[in-house]
Amino acid sequence: MNDKEKLQNLRHTSSHLLAAAVMELYSDAKRTLGPAIENGFYYDFDFTEAVSENDLAKIEDKMHELLPKWTEFTHKTVSADEAKQMFAGNEYKHELIDDFASKGEDLTVYECGGFVDLCKGGHVDNPAEEIGAFKLMSVAGAYWRGDENNKMLTRIYGTAFSTQKELDDYLLMLEESKKRDHKLLGKTLDLFTFSDMVGGGLPLWTPKGTLMRNLLDDFVWELRSAKGFEKVEIPHVAKRELYETSGHWTKFADELFHITTREEHEFVMKPMNCPHHTQIFARFPHSYRDMPQRFANTTMVYRDEQSGELSGLSRVRSITQDDAHVFCREEQVHDEVVAIWSIIKDFYKGVGFEDLTISLSMHDPDNMEAYLGTEEQWQYSEGQLRDILEQEGAEFFEAPGEAAFYGPKIDFIGRDSLGREWQVATIQLDRFMPNRFGLHCINEEGEKEQIVMIHCAIMGSIERFMSVMIEHFGGAFPVWLSPVQVVVIPISEKHVDYADDTAAHLTEAGVRVEVDDKDETMGNKIRKAQELKVPYMLVVGDKEMENNTINVRTRDGDQRGEMDIDSFTNEIASKIVQKLLDL
Amino acid sequence: MNDKEKLQNLRHTSSHLLAAAVMELYSDAKRTLGPAIENGFYYDFDFTEAVSENDLAKIEDKMHELLPKWTEFTHKTVSADEAKQMFAGNEYKHELIDDFASKGEDLTVYECGGFVDLCKGGHVDNPAEEIGAFKLMSVAGAYWRGDENNKMLTRIYGTAFSTQKELDDYLLMLEESKKRDHKLLGKTLDLFTFSDMVGGGLPLWTPKGTLMRNLLDDFVWELRSAKGFEKVEIPHVAKRELYETSGHWTKFADELFHITTREEHEFVMKPMNCPHHTQIFARFPHSYRDMPQRFANTTMVYRDEQSGELSGLSRVRSITQDDAHVFCREEQVHDEVVAIWSIIKDFYKGVGFEDLTISLSMHDPDNMEAYLGTEEQWQYSEGQLRDILEQEGAEFFEAPGEAAFYGPKIDFIGRDSLGREWQVATIQLDRFMPNRFGLHCINEEGEKEQIVMIHCAIMGSIERFMSVMIEHFGGAFPVWLSPVQVVVIPISEKHVDYADDTAAHLTEAGVRVEVDDKDETMGNKIRKAQELKVPYMLVVGDKEMENNTINVRTRDGDQRGEMDIDSFTNEIASKIVQKLLDL
Repeated sequence: MNDKEKLQNLRHTSSHLLAAAVMELYSDAKRTLGPAIENGFYYDFDFTEAVSENDLAKIEDKMHELLPKWTEFTHKTVSADEAKQMFAGNEYKHELIDDFASKGEDLTVYECGGFVDLCKGGHVDNPAEEIGAFKLMSVAGAYWRGDENNKMLTRIYGTAFSTQKELDDYLLMLEESKKRDHKLLGKTLDLFTFSDMVGGGLPLWTPKGTLMRNLLDDFVWELRSAKGFEKVEIPHVAKRELYETSGHWTKFADELFHITTREEHEFVMKPMNCPHHTQIFARFPHSYRDMPQRFANTTMVYRDEQSGELSGLSRVRSITQDDAHVFCREEQVHDEVVAIWSIIKDFYKGVGFEDLTISLSMHDPDNMEAYLGTEEQWQYSEGQLRDILEQEGAEFFEAPGEAAFYGPKIDFIGRDSLGREWQVATIQLDRFMPNRFGLHCINEEGEKEQIVMIHCAIMGSIERFMSVMIEHFGGAFPVWLSPVQVVVIPISEKHVDYADDTAAHLTEAGVRVEVDDKDETMGNKIRKAQELKVPYMLVVGDKEMENNTINVRTRDGDQRGEMDIDSFTNEIASKIVQKLLDL
Repeated sequence: MNDKEKLQNLRHTSSHLLAAAVMELYSDAKRTLGPAIENGFYYDFDFTEAVSENDLAKIEDKMHELLPKWTEFTHKTVSADEAKQMFAGNEYKHELIDDFASKGEDLTVYECGGFVDLCKGGHVDNPAEEIGAFKLMSVAGAYWRGDENNKMLTRIYGTAFSTQKELDDYLLMLEESKKRDHKLLGKTLDLFTFSDMVGGGLPLWTPKGTLMRNLLDDFVWELRSAKGFEKVEIPHVAKRELYETSGHWTKFADELFHITTREEHEFVMKPMNCPHHTQIFARFPHSYRDMPQRFANTTMVYRDEQSGELSGLSRVRSITQDDAHVFCREEQVHDEVVAIWSIIKDFYKGVGFEDLTISLSMHDPDNMEAYLGTEEQWQYSEGQLRDILEQEGAEFFEAPGEAAFYGPKIDFIGRDSLGREWQVATIQLDRFMPNRFGLHCINEEGEKEQIVMIHCAIMGSIERFMSVMIEHFGGAFPVWLSPVQVVVIPISEKHVDYADDTAAHLTEAGVRVEVDDKDETMGNKIRKAQELKVPYMLVVGDKEMENNTINVRTRDGDQRGEMDIDSFTNEIASKIVQKLLDL
């Protein structure tokens, strides 16, 4: 058992303990289900009285009281009738029992410290010793079995660790991530906004946020351009037929925004760009000499997300993808994948994510209806990507069930400054769309040869990527990415001209600079610049004017003191060009 | 009477002559209406037999036969009954007569050469002398009174001029514009494509077309950036409420693409960007010190055009606007308008449209329901724009009825190389949207002060602008705009390496260059490069390799001969940077 599985068992066990405590305190409550989840566990209850976060301390106390007696788990297989008797009057458990029984599955019950629950197992052996620390986190409403037609239950979330130290670290990280919440920082730093009149999940990008998006996208383009990519441009809608052919019509049915024109044509807002790009490729027959062709296109796609699912920039309805598609021959796949991989490495170095974890995201053989094509086709494509990863000597793990519906992927996962993992870049191998759209080149023998499509995105969704960037840096972006890189602060009115000259000099060198000549104290101006995470503050007064210098401070509070203007300009300009991460 | 009105009368007279000839040849036909239009005239007939373009020569002959007798027009006012008797059995004329009579308008009939028609006048005095030349151009179907529920009539188009020379020039221009048709050239030059699966009016931009779009847009941005504009970004949809507030919901009703989400929310694809931009401006209160704010945003808008109205890039459903909005105070309007104007001048100089005609596009006082606001408000805004035009010493004409629904405009009209006029850039003054969205700044007295919005686009629709550019240059774009600027042609295989080195040298200098090392004759390669309108062809053989030179030809057939590589590189690089128009 690895550490991750052990932690999962510990948390699942904690959910039993939570249910035991709740049943002691609220004997009328009906317990339903309580799994381990990422970062913790939950248990859903049907309470006869309102239970809120105010009650969590009491429940936690009861859990602490019970825990010492939880020293051993026992379990047995029972019949459906026996199980129903054990959970008499609990229609939720009865429904689960009927479900399991109808599938012919064994019914098992687990007991610990006198508390019995219907369960498939996955616990720690001795909870009293192994659950080192736990905490109940929050209360939320949740429909029984996630169906909005069912009753709303009360879900209690908690987390648990082997040691108090781990719990403390986790709570500290949560505290820090609250401070770094991109929704709050995005507002403070004025990067994006939402409008009730425009609608939920449709961010509006302010000048500073747009600048950052474009800096990131230009960086991607600079790297792509060097690898022979060319930009293309497409509209945001297409006829239903395009998506019927591509397969999106059935696979993405719920998430499509539908349009009926005044002539009663059926259009769809594009949920992905690949089908449009196939139509550019297919505009005329290509010779093998013209292969590969590499189309890059940063453009918005649209998904009809439900309001309840929307969250800041993490989950939106208008998603900007830095998308690209390589149309190539079989024997070109390796080189093209490696070229994209090198773009990904260079990009993530520039944005401060050095060590990316690599996942080979594969199909789920037990769920073939979720994919195009046959098991054999999938094995072939997955084998090809695995070979590339192995030949390049990469460390990677395999993730069955994580493929796109049209092909396996190499996914890249970054770990942010708070230790959280984010799926970022992706390289996807696709033989199905070329087949469905009849994409080919004319080979050396003058015959039609089906080509391969490689889908790749470096940032993926720019919205989601911006949320990751904001939280990773806590808003203190590298100099090259900072919307304002320097604030010049004149000590008094007589230094304003000199401040303006200094700013002009920096602007000339390509530095984004502002002069804060408002009628406020210098202390306030410095605090404000620090709050806005401006990398450098240049204070100028009599002395600096006389010496033709500036007095340099950083947003970290580092006082670098008097500096020659040219030296500073060269230093910062070089940091910008080289995309250095440190101030 | 100015020349334009005189030409219009000449053409209207020619439509009478056409009807007279048709009635002599097809006595069962019913004539309906025949106005002068841009570039000519037409007349709609209800024929009892099929009339096609094959019949035009015969009709033209009859017109020539009749014309000498057309020396004088007479007219008289008649009663509805008299008029109906004159056009007995012609239900179309009867309908017109009833219409005019019901509005209390006088009914007049005009006679010339024995042919009488119901008409409001507007002819030349002596057609036999004044109609110097005419030609029937084409036949098309047209619903009676443009209503698709009515009968389909046969429309005969013609044109007429004072002299044969003018007609010949016009026909030559038509011939030339057919050769320059952007739909054909766009395909030859591989700039854009359409796909049946994607849908009509939804162009897909190929690498070369995308490059040109971006070069043009980057040029606009370079000029805007120097005037303090900042980029913003917005989604392509918004809630119905946004457009109800802006006024687009009623004014653009038919042209909106509607979306109903799975949660039954009503969304609309944006037909314009201004409402979204107001919501970025309104994200927090602004001090007068923060004004003006200038948002630039090149983004696609969507209009539900009818299939029959679509035409190449000239009329599309996905329209990329190089849009911008300035939010400013009253006293800043003048300077902001002048700043935008200077961007327009610089841009059109760079793209080869030197002399723009300026139109002050105003409201139509007889059609106030088409606009927001009152007559007084319009007079005020129009006066303000007129003052700016006069203070800047501009020549301009006034165009009532040509305003946007939210305000008057300064429109710029370019004349292309075939003498055709195109409305290109626009500056629009808007007090209504700021009012409806409650946009204000806090002024020096700490009070809310409503601000003014200036809408401005430099190219307008990039799709339409690209069609104008393609036809204006006949595909032979200035060097800076050419997708491929240089083709290097090795004379034989042993010169390929030298050709590659030459290309690398040019690429290094920022020149877009291709090597044509295909197995074809040099003559073919040169012809192909000329067909693709590549500005320069560099032929390299033994002599050039020995001398470290190149042999330069232009797409015009100009043979410049042997040149030093560095001299050529410097020359072309400087033309690109300076956006020079000549080779």
